Amino acid sequence: MKVNTKRGESDNRHFSRKKSEKTPGVKIIPLGGLDQIGMNITAIEYGDTIIVIDCGLAFPEEDMLGIDLVIPDVTYLKDNADKVKGLVVTHGHEDHIGAIPYIEKEINMPIYATNLTIGLIDNKLREHNLLNNVKRKVVSYGQTINLGCFRIEFIRSNHSIADSAGLAIYTPVGILVHTGDFKVDFTPVFGETIDLQRYAELGKKGVLALMADSTNVERPGFTPSEKKVGRTFDMLFAEHRNNRLIIATFASNVDRVQQIINSAHKYERKVVIEGRSMVNVINTASELGFIQIPDNTLIEIDQIKNYPDEQIVLITTGSQGENMAALSRIAANIHNRVSIKPGDTVILSSSPIPGNEKAINKVINELEMKGAEVIFQDTHVSGHACQEELKLIYALTKPQFAIPVHGEYRHLKRHAELAMEMGVEKDHVVVMSNGNVLELSDKSAKVTGNVTAQGILVDGLGVGDVGNIVLRDRQHLSQNGLIIVVVTLEKHSNMLVAGPDIVSRGFVYVRESENLMEECRDVVEDALTGCLEKNTADWGKIKTAIKDDLGEFLWKRTKRNPMILPIITEV
Amino acid sequence: MKVNTKRGESDNRHFSRKKSEKTPGVKIIPLGGLDQIGMNITAIEYGDTIIVIDCGLAFPEEDMLGIDLVIPDVTYLKDNADKVKGLVVTHGHEDHIGAIPYIEKEINMPIYATNLTIGLIDNKLREHNLLNNVKRKVVSYGQTINLGCFRIEFIRSNHSIADSAGLAIYTPVGILVHTGDFKVDFTPVFGETIDLQRYAELGKKGVLALMADSTNVERPGFTPSEKKVGRTFDMLFAEHRNNRLIIATFASNVDRVQQIINSAHKYERKVVIEGRSMVNVINTASELGFIQIPDNTLIEIDQIKNYPDEQIVLITTGSQGENMAALSRIAANIHNRVSIKPGDTVILSSSPIPGNEKAINKVINELEMKGAEVIFQDTHVSGHACQEELKLIYALTKPQFAIPVHGEYRHLKRHAELAMEMGVEKDHVVVMSNGNVLELSDKSAKVTGNVTAQGILVDGLGVGDVGNIVLRDRQHLSQNGLIIVVVTLEKHSNMLVAGPDIVSRGFVYVRESENLMEECRDVVEDALTGCLEKNTADWGKIKTAIKDDLGEFLWKRTKRNPMILPIITEV
Repeated sequence: MKVNTKRGESDNRHFSRKKSEKTPGVKIIPLGGLDQIGMNITAIEYGDTIIVIDCGLAFPEEDMLGIDLVIPDVTYLKDNADKVKGLVVTHGHEDHIGAIPYIEKEINMPIYATNLTIGLIDNKLREHNLLNNVKRKVVSYGQTINLGCFRIEFIRSNHSIADSAGLAIYTPVGILVHTGDFKVDFTPVFGETIDLQRYAELGKKGVLALMADSTNVERPGFTPSEKKVGRTFDMLFAEHRNNRLIIATFASNVDRVQQIINSAHKYERKVVIEGRSMVNVINTASELGFIQIPDNTLIEIDQIKNYPDEQIVLITTGSQGENMAALSRIAANIHNRVSIKPGDTVILSSSPIPGNEKAINKVINELEMKGAEVIFQDTHVSGHACQEELKLIYALTKPQFAIPVHGEYRHLKRHAELAMEMGVEKDHVVVMSNGNVLELSDKSAKVTGNVTAQGILVDGLGVGDVGNIVLRDRQHLSQNGLIIVVVTLEKHSNMLVAGPDIVSRGFVYVRESENLMEECRDVVEDALTGCLEKNTADWGKIKTAIKDDLGEFLWKRTKRNPMILPIITEV
Repeated sequence: MKVNTKRGESDNRHFSRKKSEKTPGVKIIPLGGLDQIGMNITAIEYGDTIIVIDCGLAFPEEDMLGIDLVIPDVTYLKDNADKVKGLVVTHGHEDHIGAIPYIEKEINMPIYATNLTIGLIDNKLREHNLLNNVKRKVVSYGQTINLGCFRIEFIRSNHSIADSAGLAIYTPVGILVHTGDFKVDFTPVFGETIDLQRYAELGKKGVLALMADSTNVERPGFTPSEKKVGRTFDMLFAEHRNNRLIIATFASNVDRVQQIINSAHKYERKVVIEGRSMVNVINTASELGFIQIPDNTLIEIDQIKNYPDEQIVLITTGSQGENMAALSRIAANIHNRVSIKPGDTVILSSSPIPGNEKAINKVINELEMKGAEVIFQDTHVSGHACQEELKLIYALTKPQFAIPVHGEYRHLKRHAELAMEMGVEKDHVVVMSNGNVLELSDKSAKVTGNVTAQGILVDGLGVGDVGNIVLRDRQHLSQNGLIIVVVTLEKHSNMLVAGPDIVSRGFVYVRESENLMEECRDVVEDALTGCLEKNTADWGKIKTAIKDDLGEFLWKRTKRNPMILPIITEV
């Protein structure tokens, strides 16, 4: 997740402003969300005004052992706290709202978002006891808010969570359009199609820069409508009239859950919702009117036993094979209420997020071994725009500048090519890195600096107290285990009084390696004798001698490299 | 990788032989290769004869921290060593030959395989200094060998490595057909199409059971010919005349390398082969005549600098994003001979093996950040049969019994359904688990027992000395780190003489947590005082008190759960 600050600069060297120009540009500063999945947060700055767009978390990379989540470094915002006028949020996914409680503790900003998004943010603030400390304001589609020298308009959008918005940000330099995460759904389950007319109007007025979603830019064509999955559900409910149905999907996909409930109602099944995060989202969505649940449809999980299998559909979390999610617990037979029986039909209404394939495979195998049929084809559509939808937004907004957002580097680069195909001049397309400060005027775009933008690791209650040294140690311990060498030396003489005792963990099964441990003791004794003979009294040097000799011995004997921790006490 | 022994039994309860029947069946005992990727090994037994088919390794699962590879447990073979007549190998992939050196050390078997397969096995035996200890015999397609009461015929096949074979095993009970890993390639790059006529002849004679490759059974249609990739290469070479080309593929895919060399020759480029495993395979294939390299085509990597970029193609390992493979090192800028320049074109001629997606993504991003164009679409075809090819083999062999092999449980189950569609009776289709002993007669198939078949973990030079306890410790250490508490107590009185000293690794960055460590010392001192007051003299109990109190304190303060190791010395 580290940022190669050099790249941004060299990529952008062509569109520097001439020194004579004096008009200041608007600054666009992504503090996260590029080169990685998640942790979306961007600062927009002009004069004495900064607004923040989104404030998400990222899930840890594979090498971030023991880390629970990653949040953005907002040092730049704290250093400019007097300028920060507010946080504008496009939609309620974790990678856009998940870091809010952590960041609001560092810098108190009023939050502006649509109804459901604020509802989900409220849940988070409540968990962190921050509900009374943070101002929130619900904004409707088409409504405009003023924050310092910016005016921000919320534009109706479509995505895999309801009530998502795009933004038009009116700056002194021109209009920035930020799509948020989006797709074009002509037949959405809830609400209406993305406000293409408004994007067209903005284009007619003149859009300075378009910041659009790059997630699916490698995919040709058009992402299908969410309604398509509903038709698949209807078909699957019809085909599996005699089976219990278990459907796993993303906790936040309210429309997906709505469609399952619709099919359940049609085929006269009771619905159980299982998994803490899904229960939270659906409760909030239901209170705010984003999901319609017919009376007598929802039942509690305890009531399953009162109904025959063919009258039940269980909607759960865990479609990504997450270890502790409901579906994984059901598959592993450690769920306390539900166990799989032959004849059960399990539908994975999702596609694997890269990195989760093996975990999902494991869940599928476990379910099938217990006799379930697992269905995972044609049961999901993406929430992100493919190439033709992106081209449509470019055709409507006709931006002077294109600044691809929301994607890894490969996606940003493909998106840059697409923007050029759509007529944006080559030196008006800017592929940014996290931390780049882009200054944008109506004539040019230039990266003029860099601010801190590395992720901060959260482990338990600790925020930022696990860094590279700790992670390196965890990595070393995980691969090789450790050996602790305890020796007690006599004060002054440094003669061995007790030990050496060898304690190992995660290295080798000790009972079967008594001999090896005995030899380790000999090696340590020899090292100590060597130190005595050379009159080495410095503990640091004695420890180094133990580490080196024992390390070399173990490598020769086992081709392994455990962490060696010599501990010296003296009496 | 553990085996649920119950499943096999219950699945197979329908096809038990009647007690009155006395004819013994042939036993089929998969010791690996089912429910997991890799580690293919199957024993076939009748009377005093056992033959072993393949002897592969598996790569470690994600939770097998620090493990290098996994090899089969051959306790059953060792217990019946006098019966074991030989090892028959279908092809030279790691998951079919990788465990041979380890297993030959435990049980010496003569090896029978085709020319290239023996060549690759020889490389392995040489590395382990076993070349003089193990008999090998090269067998040609169509040739038959006699091992005890079995006759084994090698049948020409197609796969993603040259010289692969299917097997017909003539047993006293009937003919078993084992496809090995296979596809049907009507236009193979090297050699001829799989010997469909022979499969048909065997079918006419009567095949007792078909053991066929399940890898791609979820995919409809027909796997395209390897030649298709050659056409893509030609096109890419033509399109990128002015760029340096770097192509990553599987080290063992000789035909793929041949096609790259063909395109290179056509477009007048020099070829560099980089990556130890690929160099090994290509050398062996070249010596044995399985690859034709025109004179003056291959150059050494040092010579790259003598040619302009557009006259170079580098063929490397690392298409799965493997950490230490050539392509990853090039992408990370730590390769000592090759570094990426803007304008380079990198082709990934592979598809991701599940679990490797994130690593591959990382490599692609790194390459593109350095200015390379990365191409990964239409540059690979599978080496395994899709549904229509499997159906073809069923149509030709018309087996009485179907025993799906080579796949995870979900694949075996789909394959079982396909076999039934192709007319095999439901109770003649057997989904086995590793370790199941299947007794097969011409009338019935029954799992009559189970033998040990868990994988054995190899870590460095240690084979089997890392088990569940060590792995659990590594897991614990990797997620939470450790805290060592050192106290020196006075003999008899148990009064604290020195310490408590707290040493932590992988827990928290200590310099920023001085206070926390200070508090830890207080907690330990209180625990010791408590023990003294209660006259607890037993070190085990004192250690438990320290662990419990400190563990509880740390959980409350940090919501983390490090491993706590109290170490008591006495003076």
